[in-house]
Amino acid sequence: MTDRKRIPVAVLGATGSVGQRFVELLLGHPWFELRAVAASDRSAGRAYREAARWLQAAPLSPEIGGLPVRPCEPGAVGDCPLVFSALDSSVAGEVEKAFAAAGRVVVSNSKNHRMDPDVPLVVPEVNPDHVELVRAQPGPGAILTNPNCSTIGLVLALKPLADAFGIESVNVVTMQALSGAGIPGVPSLSALDNVIPFIAGEEEKIENETRKILGRLDGARIAPADVTVSAACNRVSVIDGHLECVSVKLRKKASAGDLESAWRDFSAEPQARKLPSAPAAPIVFLREDDAPQPRLHRDLGGGMAASVGRLRPCPLLDWKFVTLSHNTIRGAAGGSLLLAELAVARGLLK
Amino acid sequence: MTDRKRIPVAVLGATGSVGQRFVELLLGHPWFELRAVAASDRSAGRAYREAARWLQAAPLSPEIGGLPVRPCEPGAVGDCPLVFSALDSSVAGEVEKAFAAAGRVVVSNSKNHRMDPDVPLVVPEVNPDHVELVRAQPGPGAILTNPNCSTIGLVLALKPLADAFGIESVNVVTMQALSGAGIPGVPSLSALDNVIPFIAGEEEKIENETRKILGRLDGARIAPADVTVSAACNRVSVIDGHLECVSVKLRKKASAGDLESAWRDFSAEPQARKLPSAPAAPIVFLREDDAPQPRLHRDLGGGMAASVGRLRPCPLLDWKFVTLSHNTIRGAAGGSLLLAELAVARGLLK
Amino acid sequence: MTDRKRIPVAVLGATGSVGQRFVELLLGHPWFELRAVAASDRSAGRAYREAARWLQAAPLSPEIGGLPVRPCEPGAVGDCPLVFSALDSSVAGEVEKAFAAAGRVVVSNSKNHRMDPDVPLVVPEVNPDHVELVRAQPGPGAILTNPNCSTIGLVLALKPLADAFGIESVNVVTMQALSGAGIPGVPSLSALDNVIPFIAGEEEKIENETRKILGRLDGARIAPADVTVSAACNRVSVIDGHLECVSVKLRKKASAGDLESAWRDFSAEPQARKLPSAPAAPIVFLREDDAPQPRLHRDLGGGMAASVGRLRPCPLLDWKFVTLSHNTIRGAAGGSLLLAELAVARGLLK
Amino acid sequence: MTDRKRIPVAVLGATGSVGQRFVELLLGHPWFELRAVAASDRSAGRAYREAARWLQAAPLSPEIGGLPVRPCEPGAVGDCPLVFSALDSSVAGEVEKAFAAAGRVVVSNSKNHRMDPDVPLVVPEVNPDHVELVRAQPGPGAILTNPNCSTIGLVLALKPLADAFGIESVNVVTMQALSGAGIPGVPSLSALDNVIPFIAGEEEKIENETRKILGRLDGARIAPADVTVSAACNRVSVIDGHLECVSVKLRKKASAGDLESAWRDFSAEPQARKLPSAPAAPIVFLREDDAPQPRLHRDLGGGMAASVGRLRPCPLLDWKFVTLSHNTIRGAAGGSLLLAELAVARGLLK
Repeated sequence: MTDRKRIPVAVLGATGSVGQRFVELLLGHPWFELRAVAASDRSAGRAYREAARWLQAAPLSPEIGGLPVRPCEPGAVGDCPLVFSALDSSVAGEVEKAFAAAGRVVVSNSKNHRMDPDVPLVVPEVNPDHVELVRAQPGPGAILTNPNCSTIGLVLALKPLADAFGIESVNVVTMQALSGAGIPGVPSLSALDNVIPFIAGEEEKIENETRKILGRLDGARIAPADVTVSAACNRVSVIDGHLECVSVKLRKKASAGDLESAWRDFSAEPQARKLPSAPAAPIVFLREDDAPQPRLHRDLGGGMAASVGRLRPCPLLDWKFVTLSHNTIRGAAGGSLLLAELAVARGLLK
Repeated sequence: MTDRKRIPVAVLGATGSVGQRFVELLLGHPWFELRAVAASDRSAGRAYREAARWLQAAPLSPEIGGLPVRPCEPGAVGDCPLVFSALDSSVAGEVEKAFAAAGRVVVSNSKNHRMDPDVPLVVPEVNPDHVELVRAQPGPGAILTNPNCSTIGLVLALKPLADAFGIESVNVVTMQALSGAGIPGVPSLSALDNVIPFIAGEEEKIENETRKILGRLDGARIAPADVTVSAACNRVSVIDGHLECVSVKLRKKASAGDLESAWRDFSAEPQARKLPSAPAAPIVFLREDDAPQPRLHRDLGGGMAASVGRLRPCPLLDWKFVTLSHNTIRGAAGGSLLLAELAVARGLLK
Repeated sequence: MTDRKRIPVAVLGATGSVGQRFVELLLGHPWFELRAVAASDRSAGRAYREAARWLQAAPLSPEIGGLPVRPCEPGAVGDCPLVFSALDSSVAGEVEKAFAAAGRVVVSNSKNHRMDPDVPLVVPEVNPDHVELVRAQPGPGAILTNPNCSTIGLVLALKPLADAFGIESVNVVTMQALSGAGIPGVPSLSALDNVIPFIAGEEEKIENETRKILGRLDGARIAPADVTVSAACNRVSVIDGHLECVSVKLRKKASAGDLESAWRDFSAEPQARKLPSAPAAPIVFLREDDAPQPRLHRDLGGGMAASVGRLRPCPLLDWKFVTLSHNTIRGAAGGSLLLAELAVARGLLK
Repeated sequence: MTDRKRIPVAVLGATGSVGQRFVELLLGHPWFELRAVAASDRSAGRAYREAARWLQAAPLSPEIGGLPVRPCEPGAVGDCPLVFSALDSSVAGEVEKAFAAAGRVVVSNSKNHRMDPDVPLVVPEVNPDHVELVRAQPGPGAILTNPNCSTIGLVLALKPLADAFGIESVNVVTMQALSGAGIPGVPSLSALDNVIPFIAGEEEKIENETRKILGRLDGARIAPADVTVSAACNRVSVIDGHLECVSVKLRKKASAGDLESAWRDFSAEPQARKLPSAPAAPIVFLREDDAPQPRLHRDLGGGMAASVGRLRPCPLLDWKFVTLSHNTIRGAAGGSLLLAELAVARGLLK
């Protein structure tokens, strides 16, 4: 793959916070080359550096800063066969369909098509085979989706347990970062010295997406997993990194050592295929009393690894633990990139 | 009560963050008069304003600022029959016993004696009759205790449900304020842009104290309630106010309206007796989508009311909701004051 | 004054952050009675509690919460002779003129008319006589203005020095609170772990307003003070309270003790007239090494006192010090209230 | 240099926040190889990962985490000819002397010897020739020092102006990050929703160190620069990055364009010698209205570049601007590394 020519790609919704992460992560990507940035009509025509209120810690490169922002239409972004979507859900539905109808492979971080029966909802380490569901789509292009940022960390942590012991039920309470709300997002007066115990639609997403992702590909459909999931979502005063307190009831008895081994030994298709964005270890188990913490552990594996810690018995279900993942890297742009790499590796893009 | 002379009181551990709240709340108290402040030997002898690093929003009054800090010995605080303890648990055990042995009624916010079989652990609206357990103590004084700050909000929210429907099990995930860790407490580098998913001993306290408080006074002992409690505790970047995401399984079927009514109609002995620190409504039910929030609702009822919101069905247990209470007012100093008022009203101090 | 009937008042722009403070401070005001709240057409017609995203720590009372929001027209707010304006500057100019033309006395917190030659720009302790400048206005109503939030703390601290020693030049660097930017204001991603070293137009306001306020009423105009002012403004991660690092060059030699006495002894017309919103001491001089601090001292004098501390020699000018004032109380709504009280006391409202 | 063997180095005070940065930056350093970590007796003997409460965003490598912590004695750290000191000032004075007496070259971030007449105080781009002052030291080793973290950004920004136009006076107000206070450092209750307008000894350091650094090497002494400096220092709620509001009076008239060119064109010995830690451009001039900001620009040049922006005329002196530098990289560990590289390049270590 390294000696082949890089695939030209475009980013839709490139000026928002997830779009900015796409742009940041595509710099120097070995397989993909960022050729076009597109955004709403309000931004179209301006230079990217002026249209985007760049809020990433890493400085914006002059080349990318100078790219003209294009409108979100297939005709406007050149002949990129692969398109990343960080569009707002108010427009993503139709725009992504238009790109797929124009023959592009759309890898989307938006919620609109995630639960469509013929659209794969994929975390590459968890359900890589679901990618094949695109063959049920009308073509000539395709839509693949990334789960919600708070679902990703959860299913990564659950997958090794589901494989080894089976999962009957899950309770999860999230403490989610401000960057998940985009720009301008949460007003500072609501964020400072505060927690907001509500994120619109988030709990339903976690509950439904988790069942689809842990489900089984059955021909042209996904049979959802038989797992009861209850979620409660909170916005906390953290810049990046969603922390989640999880309790699980397993189908098979297991010791703390069994769970720890399941996490430590976990490796999956992205690691086997050595996809460029795949972390060496998708799950990092931490033994410190007070880990994981957003500021200390969100960047593990370049922001692509979920960390797990504080494993202890649950008086109510079987086990309690804490998991953390970087919401705008693994939980959004980085996760979509890894998914696109998986799609390429499985031959979906020629 | 208003025309009787005020009871002279002392505060032990007056320089710490809970001690400072005691001092603040005792200013102008109609029944109690702050006569002495005591703290560790390191502070003893200095003026209170110099010994305490005053961190409350309300400015310290000159009179109190000028009080000399005394050592924590019964002989050093004059003849105050009532003593509030905000002592660190490393010393509270012995010091409180010494004051009780010297005939003082000690109302303590420390954890040391909470689970002692003959020591009442009381939230005045929840288990006021447990106060009578002190009659099982050797005397001549007595020790009464306040629960842990994160337990108080929980049991206040649970009590009306326990009375009306019975509670079988509870899952609670807390997001606790920094002031709960005292001074110096959490380093700012650990608090900013971060969550710490661990508070030493806190989960056990919530699980055990809840069963004792919801239990039944049975002669000279408490029969703990038959409730399964699972807690996960987190420290978030909030100054005051513990927020808790709760799920409950009830013993009797109930509708959302039933739960809401149970909370809205809740009133208890402190309200009936019109105790000075009792909030008009101990529980405030909020209907906004995104309430309660620490910064907006922690001061309801002067910081003495718990707020409850976000009631919705739980796919796993029966109901999910969010509760909030002010950790250094209701959850510490204010709760102890109310308990002392209850003790006076029930005739424990003559 | 206490036995006369309260003056009915309206608040224009009542849903924003300054508007909310007006509403909060008018509750229980001895001279004024809040009769109407007005805001943009988008909010008009809705109940105040729904139109305003209430973000004050003190809970909104049910009565005020139920007031219908009116459009910002003289005919819509009843016959209130006194109107407080917290309008956005994009509309304040015309709306305030319309109210004045309709015979109302408008006390405005907006910047639009501050530098008009016939409009008084007043801090009641600093230049109360400037109120008389309204007599130069066409009538039948009048417009009086409050300075910018960051100017107020500065001129309060400067006034006693100007009176006693004369001021030649001032350098001020501000660290301003987020609430000064209103709602939604600063995005949390720009506020957390950050400082923004720019506030549009703010430096010019401080430099110009200070000269007008410290100037002399000369018939129908103000002769600006002959003071060189240089300002640099920053937005910091603080909820309320503007902190300012000030250096001054005096016209007359003075010792640290002279300056301290000038501040400690300072009292002015609002104190002499015992205006309801006047703090007992307009300036609180603090001797601690590290004071004033926003969270500890912003509420001094009910948020109406400026605090001053850290007085030390300046190698460049004469003296350096730090001053703090509450930007949405003294620096906005509270300052306007005090100004309205002054106008009433001086007989401007009959 | 690239093909020669790496120089073995030790870090003294390796467990604190600056020490951690040294460790982080030495990983993979092309010239230096971290061989030993030393700290107080309390930590000595434990593995580094256990002794240090690792608070950097980048995860600690297992090899370094496993290094045993040694006592701070020349005999305990092997035969490292080069030693970095991040010691607390309570012990740094004697320990550093002992290492120098034992023939080691000590590059120190501590304040103790900075103002010693025979000790160079060096920012490599500003006064590289001052390094030669060590030849005045008794030997056989040497002590070189890094300025205070808040001085470094200032002198970097001043140097091109001093060279081109001469500087008569400087006023600087700092807004400094929490990491500058080390661990545990500022309590979170003092940092959140607050500014602390005082940092012990900091203003004196800026005022004195700036004159020494901008001074002239005159044989065996430094003739301090004839510049009046006035500093006011504040601690703000920022994790990393000191922001400074500066006003300067120049000796020669200059336009905004002249200043901007002086900064943009600035390059110095570390760039000419291509020292490994030297940023390509030591000063990055930013034209945005609201730049630099700590979270957006502190990592420019890998944290080794100072950024400058908001240039505008000053009514009092000549020009005002804002400068930012990363306090634990350029302002501490990174600055010391660069200084050590300069010392090696100038032949001080054989």
